[in-house]
Amino acid sequence: MSVTAAQGFRAAGVTAGLKASGTPDLALVVNDGPRHTAAAVFTTNRVVGAPVMWSRQAVKDGAARAVVLNSGGANVCTGPGGFQDAHATAEAVAEALGIGAIDVLVASTGLIGVRLAAEKLVAGVPVAAGSLADDDAAGTAAATAIMTTDTVPKTAVRTIETPDGTVTVGGMAKGAGMLAPALATMLCVITTDADVDPAAADAALRSATRETFDRVDSDGAMSTSDTVVLMASGASGATPEPAALTAAVTAVCADLARQLVADAEGASHEIAITVTNATTEDAALAVARAVSRSNLVKAAIFGNDPNWGRILSQVGTVSEEVAPFDPLELDVSVNGVMVCKAGGAHESPDKVDLGASRGVDITVDLHAGDAEVTLWTNDLTHAYVHENSAYSS
Amino acid sequence: MSVTAAQGFRAAGVTAGLKASGTPDLALVVNDGPRHTAAAVFTTNRVVGAPVMWSRQAVKDGAARAVVLNSGGANVCTGPGGFQDAHATAEAVAEALGIGAIDVLVASTGLIGVRLAAEKLVAGVPVAAGSLADDDAAGTAAATAIMTTDTVPKTAVRTIETPDGTVTVGGMAKGAGMLAPALATMLCVITTDADVDPAAADAALRSATRETFDRVDSDGAMSTSDTVVLMASGASGATPEPAALTAAVTAVCADLARQLVADAEGASHEIAITVTNATTEDAALAVARAVSRSNLVKAAIFGNDPNWGRILSQVGTVSEEVAPFDPLELDVSVNGVMVCKAGGAHESPDKVDLGASRGVDITVDLHAGDAEVTLWTNDLTHAYVHENSAYSS
Repeated sequence: MSVTAAQGFRAAGVTAGLKASGTPDLALVVNDGPRHTAAAVFTTNRVVGAPVMWSRQAVKDGAARAVVLNSGGANVCTGPGGFQDAHATAEAVAEALGIGAIDVLVASTGLIGVRLAAEKLVAGVPVAAGSLADDDAAGTAAATAIMTTDTVPKTAVRTIETPDGTVTVGGMAKGAGMLAPALATMLCVITTDADVDPAAADAALRSATRETFDRVDSDGAMSTSDTVVLMASGASGATPEPAALTAAVTAVCADLARQLVADAEGASHEIAITVTNATTEDAALAVARAVSRSNLVKAAIFGNDPNWGRILSQVGTVSEEVAPFDPLELDVSVNGVMVCKAGGAHESPDKVDLGASRGVDITVDLHAGDAEVTLWTNDLTHAYVHENSAYSS
Repeated sequence: MSVTAAQGFRAAGVTAGLKASGTPDLALVVNDGPRHTAAAVFTTNRVVGAPVMWSRQAVKDGAARAVVLNSGGANVCTGPGGFQDAHATAEAVAEALGIGAIDVLVASTGLIGVRLAAEKLVAGVPVAAGSLADDDAAGTAAATAIMTTDTVPKTAVRTIETPDGTVTVGGMAKGAGMLAPALATMLCVITTDADVDPAAADAALRSATRETFDRVDSDGAMSTSDTVVLMASGASGATPEPAALTAAVTAVCADLARQLVADAEGASHEIAITVTNATTEDAALAVARAVSRSNLVKAAIFGNDPNWGRILSQVGTVSEEVAPFDPLELDVSVNGVMVCKAGGAHESPDKVDLGASRGVDITVDLHAGDAEVTLWTNDLTHAYVHENSAYSS
């Protein structure tokens, strides 16, 4: 179950021929209403792709009837011609569905700096429109068509019980590596049959991404194409409480974010960095981010070495203005073993078994307040270097 | 020629037995005067080793007669006992030389979180004192004894002509990997026979490190032990102009910094990232730093791929407040080939040959002002992952 789990949505995933591999590369998600509420969050990178430029404008009125997504080309740094390609894609969807182009969002992923095979993309749109369906298979086909170096399609579904009936929230995402702050390199479409207005959708989406995708930092890189779209059809006839909607959208995003980390390029460990007892959430996040950015920490985890000295060294790089703490009070635990207490050696690192599973829990206790944050990252492996040096992407 | 090039200095490098390998691990540099001017710059990490705590206090009066340095243990996160070890080392030097311990600076490098074999270190001090000499061989021995994963000792010498005669500035450094902002993981001792006071020495050293070691960023990690010491003996009887002294100290630091980058753990390319036409030097540095921190850029260079999309994507992560520029005006050249012009593809990346030499020049033109900065980094290689995952350090 995916973007077709909620009532009022159809999806398709087809092969337009953008990828040399010949695998599916064009996805379409359509909101059949009765409402056409939409909200979106984009990369904060100042260098953005033409699809982001287009979609930012298209979603401004809080409405969208369709999202068209492609892999096999990011359409970034492609100049005015690239923007025309994005526009032409929206027009092709509008013509195939009998709607206005301004109600069509566009999202692309792939290599930067190269023009898309736009004629193939435009020709593929009617094929996608012709295979739209509201069943599981269609949702999975869409999730598969947006994959790049992903090894599996990523989908998630949650439901909300309301006095007026059940509301469903479903989603799909792609992304593996280049997962970074203020959105991973990823495309994500979330659908719901909740009967909500644009303001409610926007509030729920922003809260959800801040606590999920923004806390995934695979390799510190921030993409030029990150796009998360939420569409609401109102087809359930039920309006959940704002907090319930936010919770369900957050749960779907969290589920998808975990799947992104688990499928990150070349990783052998998923690392959860929890910073506890910080003065503020921002302070905790800054410390967690400093640890997650360390190649030395990440390479040590790859080598199954709970090297707390490298962790402490990263914690110490955060300025006192950002995160007040006493370096001589820091505790570090790895998989529950407190290897560092009060800034010095404590339990033996030999007690930590990092080879047993992919999951690694690093906890840094600042002893400075009561705020806590968990950030997700991966280890640094030979496979990461290989994947990112052996071919352009 | 190294720390013994300037008049008034003796040095030694011996084996105290701290390293399992049995290679030299204890260095001593002594200033025989007539002046004993000293200045030092330390890591800005909030987690610092006991030697840094000791030496910060010892150098406060602007005077020092000796620096004792060891590899085979960083003495970081070792609690009050570790501080006693650093103090005992200074006392041992003071006793061997007949001076006060407060005139002895201590610097250590090696694994964090483990107590030093302090008894071996203290026992080694008289041996080092007994082999002090003012010749080239003694300078090289000291430079060799501070090596950890370095493959070669690093030394540099410059001279200044003054009306009162020639002034010499010499130095040695260790460090390979963990080269980062606000000092690399490294120990560096610079000696000069200039007749200068502590304020002049301090000003020259701070200016030099800001423009050299602070612009080396091998892997974004900041050590807990970084120490750069400048000692002036006054033995030449000549006092150079402040600008001349700064220039010579900067030249020695720049030479050593380049040697550190060239010897960085597992690197196959040395990358010079130059950001031109920025509004300010800080803006240029922030953009260069963003590019240098990207594992995707660094892995691409390892793969001999001049992937300008990844470079532009990193440039775009710098906020407009920090570095004003128009993303649609950015040019990127790699080894002199302008692969990106005005934010889009320009000359073919095929024209760039990254396999021909270790040196890579990346230039980003912001078209926003007239400030320029060059930052040095390395590529991300299989060897880096291997070195930093296969053993604790």
